[in-house]
Amino acid sequence: MSAFNEYPATAKLRKLAEKPLDLSKEGNLSCKRVSQMTCKCLNLKLMYGTERVNEKTLDALYELANEAGVYEKMKAMQSGEIINKIEGHESENRMVLHTAMRDFFDRQNEKEQAKQAVALAYAELEKLKSFLDGIEKEGFTDMIQVGIGGSELGPKAIYLALEAFKREGRRVHFISNVDPDDAARVIRRVDLSKTLVVIVSKSGTTLETLTNEELIRKKFLGEGLSPKNHFLAVTGKGSPMDDPDKYRKAFFIWDYVGGRYSATSMVGCVSLAFALGMEKLLDFLKGASCMDKVALGEDPQQNLPLLSALLGIWNHNFLGLPTTAIIPYSQAMSRFPAHLQQCDMESNGKRIDKEGNEVDFSTGPIIWGEPGTNGQHSFYQLIHQGTIPVPVEFIGFAKNQYDEDTSFKKTTSQEKLLSNLFAQSIGLARGQESDNPNKVFPGNRPNRVLLAEKCDPYTMGVILSYYENKVAFQGFIWNINSFDQEGVQLGKVLANKIIDQFAKKRKEEEFHEDFPLGAIYIDQLKDL
Amino acid sequence: MSAFNEYPATAKLRKLAEKPLDLSKEGNLSCKRVSQMTCKCLNLKLMYGTERVNEKTLDALYELANEAGVYEKMKAMQSGEIINKIEGHESENRMVLHTAMRDFFDRQNEKEQAKQAVALAYAELEKLKSFLDGIEKEGFTDMIQVGIGGSELGPKAIYLALEAFKREGRRVHFISNVDPDDAARVIRRVDLSKTLVVIVSKSGTTLETLTNEELIRKKFLGEGLSPKNHFLAVTGKGSPMDDPDKYRKAFFIWDYVGGRYSATSMVGCVSLAFALGMEKLLDFLKGASCMDKVALGEDPQQNLPLLSALLGIWNHNFLGLPTTAIIPYSQAMSRFPAHLQQCDMESNGKRIDKEGNEVDFSTGPIIWGEPGTNGQHSFYQLIHQGTIPVPVEFIGFAKNQYDEDTSFKKTTSQEKLLSNLFAQSIGLARGQESDNPNKVFPGNRPNRVLLAEKCDPYTMGVILSYYENKVAFQGFIWNINSFDQEGVQLGKVLANKIIDQFAKKRKEEEFHEDFPLGAIYIDQLKDL
Repeated sequence: MSAFNEYPATAKLRKLAEKPLDLSKEGNLSCKRVSQMTCKCLNLKLMYGTERVNEKTLDALYELANEAGVYEKMKAMQSGEIINKIEGHESENRMVLHTAMRDFFDRQNEKEQAKQAVALAYAELEKLKSFLDGIEKEGFTDMIQVGIGGSELGPKAIYLALEAFKREGRRVHFISNVDPDDAARVIRRVDLSKTLVVIVSKSGTTLETLTNEELIRKKFLGEGLSPKNHFLAVTGKGSPMDDPDKYRKAFFIWDYVGGRYSATSMVGCVSLAFALGMEKLLDFLKGASCMDKVALGEDPQQNLPLLSALLGIWNHNFLGLPTTAIIPYSQAMSRFPAHLQQCDMESNGKRIDKEGNEVDFSTGPIIWGEPGTNGQHSFYQLIHQGTIPVPVEFIGFAKNQYDEDTSFKKTTSQEKLLSNLFAQSIGLARGQESDNPNKVFPGNRPNRVLLAEKCDPYTMGVILSYYENKVAFQGFIWNINSFDQEGVQLGKVLANKIIDQFAKKRKEEEFHEDFPLGAIYIDQLKDL
Repeated sequence: MSAFNEYPATAKLRKLAEKPLDLSKEGNLSCKRVSQMTCKCLNLKLMYGTERVNEKTLDALYELANEAGVYEKMKAMQSGEIINKIEGHESENRMVLHTAMRDFFDRQNEKEQAKQAVALAYAELEKLKSFLDGIEKEGFTDMIQVGIGGSELGPKAIYLALEAFKREGRRVHFISNVDPDDAARVIRRVDLSKTLVVIVSKSGTTLETLTNEELIRKKFLGEGLSPKNHFLAVTGKGSPMDDPDKYRKAFFIWDYVGGRYSATSMVGCVSLAFALGMEKLLDFLKGASCMDKVALGEDPQQNLPLLSALLGIWNHNFLGLPTTAIIPYSQAMSRFPAHLQQCDMESNGKRIDKEGNEVDFSTGPIIWGEPGTNGQHSFYQLIHQGTIPVPVEFIGFAKNQYDEDTSFKKTTSQEKLLSNLFAQSIGLARGQESDNPNKVFPGNRPNRVLLAEKCDPYTMGVILSYYENKVAFQGFIWNINSFDQEGVQLGKVLANKIIDQFAKKRKEEEFHEDFPLGAIYIDQLKDL
């Protein structure tokens, strides 16, 4: 049996899940309940009165956290202990120190490894500042970030979320897909002579990224521009991309920062600082660091990422709900669910525990989502009346970003936006009776609401770290390694075999020998 | 018992699902199997050798299609019979004729209602052509489409997919969210004096859309421009938006075209024709119409949307898999999964059958997805090694759109893209053994591959209709009404109550009486 199934709290929770709170029952969703079930940390407030929990459930969840030793594990992570490993088997054996990328505001972390990582990160930040100061007069207007996975999703989601705060006349574009049309489309939009290109790959060997780099270099050369003046690298020290002959400047990352946790490292900072300026970048990093400290707290009612992790585990492992939707009521955050999809699913989509045993419970859920109110006109039909309940985490802001709201029929757009968010939370929980079976809403669908004042740099940092730490806590409770990604290897190996076949096919027709299955697929392209 | 559970084929399939084909077992995933299990219709090819089916499963699925009467139901739909209804209860009672929006290429539909709908649609198309010819010399460069749900998702997904084919110097932007920052961001990008604005709302009363319209009208007035010269309407005849005093031109849609099926009506055509020109718009419509004819075919092996519907039902109802990922290996199609999410989940996220009885089986799955290869660096970890198998439909193209591919290490980017797609399909099905438990891939994860030559206007029409008809077929088999959306009503009602409270709050503080729960949520904004 897995550790997770051996905790006494797990048995208790399983028992409680036989008859969980019914939110649709008269009186259960009271004003008192909703007011009381809120947790405020920093400038975030989580309202979870619309989850199917009561005091007993919460107590059992807190016990689970204790029994799983989450406080020690979080401390170990932020202290730089080697937690990215599988006992008794070959594994990455690395520290997990993305929190060090932003931990230079109070410098209270006393562990040597962590202090070193902080110092290295801060030095890169100073290097970045002086680089950006240096190019200030060169008139660059655009930056193209080339990277895939964590080298695109987080940085892009945060750039879009904070676009309202960017410097006049500066824009960032992202190229990720090996699909050549992705690069073609972006290049058409910019004046290359005023464009910096930042190539991001920790290993310096990512196929998609190197392919796109090659394509863009040719474009620069085609326009008589020297790539050397325009290309920057973000990579590991000593990687093939750590090459002063090819790049104007290289910024470094380390093996203890996983791609999906790298938004606050140079992977995200170079383009964010270009767009927002250093000061706002620091606000963003500070928000993230502040929430990291919250995650170290040992009172689960005041540790927002942990509370959220526990509610998620209740919905997933005990109520048996396979997915979770993240729905920001903010168009600026439109790509944030895609980032969380990576951060969560790549971390916790695992089938063995930290000792290498196959787990006997469900690990990470499927994470998906689109912004509201848009989703209301799309998949909400299924959320309200479908046969698969979907736990939802709504994100809302009291104020909007641009100072351009308008009053229409006596309320502002922002008020309408919030009204819709609140209405959905209540409607999903409470449901509605009707004589017409088609107008019945069964209700009792768990959800929660995360509120903040405004989607600004500091708050985005807070929110990012909230989710990163939530994911880590769930991994700690499940006793899995949330920091490797062996599951992406097989595809790479097979893809290279098929790429070889394409290459051979250019020379001769007899290419079927090495990997017949791949050849069959290629053959299918013939008569399209 | 629901009709679905009474079909003899359902019992047969349940039996077969006790021991479904194991794709990871030596020899099961053979070249012969993969070659044979392909179905070609028009210019699409579906490879489904990586689904967990054999001849017996397929035969039972074909029987299910027969027993559910899908051929008659598809014919009834395309003939304009009133199929959007719930027997014995108040319901919409409408025809479902989105196929008529594009059925003027062979004019073989003899049913009177359908013929009328086709004639009306064609007249709007001619109106559109003459309008666009008329403004040719006025120098409009940009169009902003304001609409939400079906009035945004489909048109935007298709516009992005076909951006490579657009006219030089023309761009379309979309504003959907009531979030005021959405509009603010778009307006900053355009020169309003050269911009047309098309407001899309069938009812002419959609809150988000009218709010955004108001905001944009103010911007035009603020720049001394007359909105009347720039604003177009797409709406139902006689709606509040059918108003020649406010709009330069109105284009019409009808109650028999649901929002999520409206991409080929004026909802999509106005902006697509502005961007692509009439000729390419017609290619797109023709593709969709051709696939509609395929959907009428009574041989399930030659009816691609039906075959896909059946495979989906096998995965969902018999293998018990709650979600489906749609993953186009094409960056241009990046928003197509979001469109399908709406089309599928709003259609089939239902809990009662067509007679108003609660169903005793699972209806529509959760649809999600992002483009490949990007997803490989994100959620594929869970797809390969997580605890919840995710059926995947991959979409691939032999050629890219722009003529700007590059050869790097002997293969082109497009070849690398396809190699990755094929590798994932094989890897998910076959898995991999290893002594290291962390390197074990269990495999046996069902998926299929949809291939076409190129993502061009005709092909996008074919693909759109393929999915629309797949969704309809699944609804037919489940005996649910895929064409209403009662599940979105409750949220609207509750939202209006909360909006009222915001409005009252501006006048006085005592606003708690009418809907205390709403007030509690508003109260929570105070101390953020």
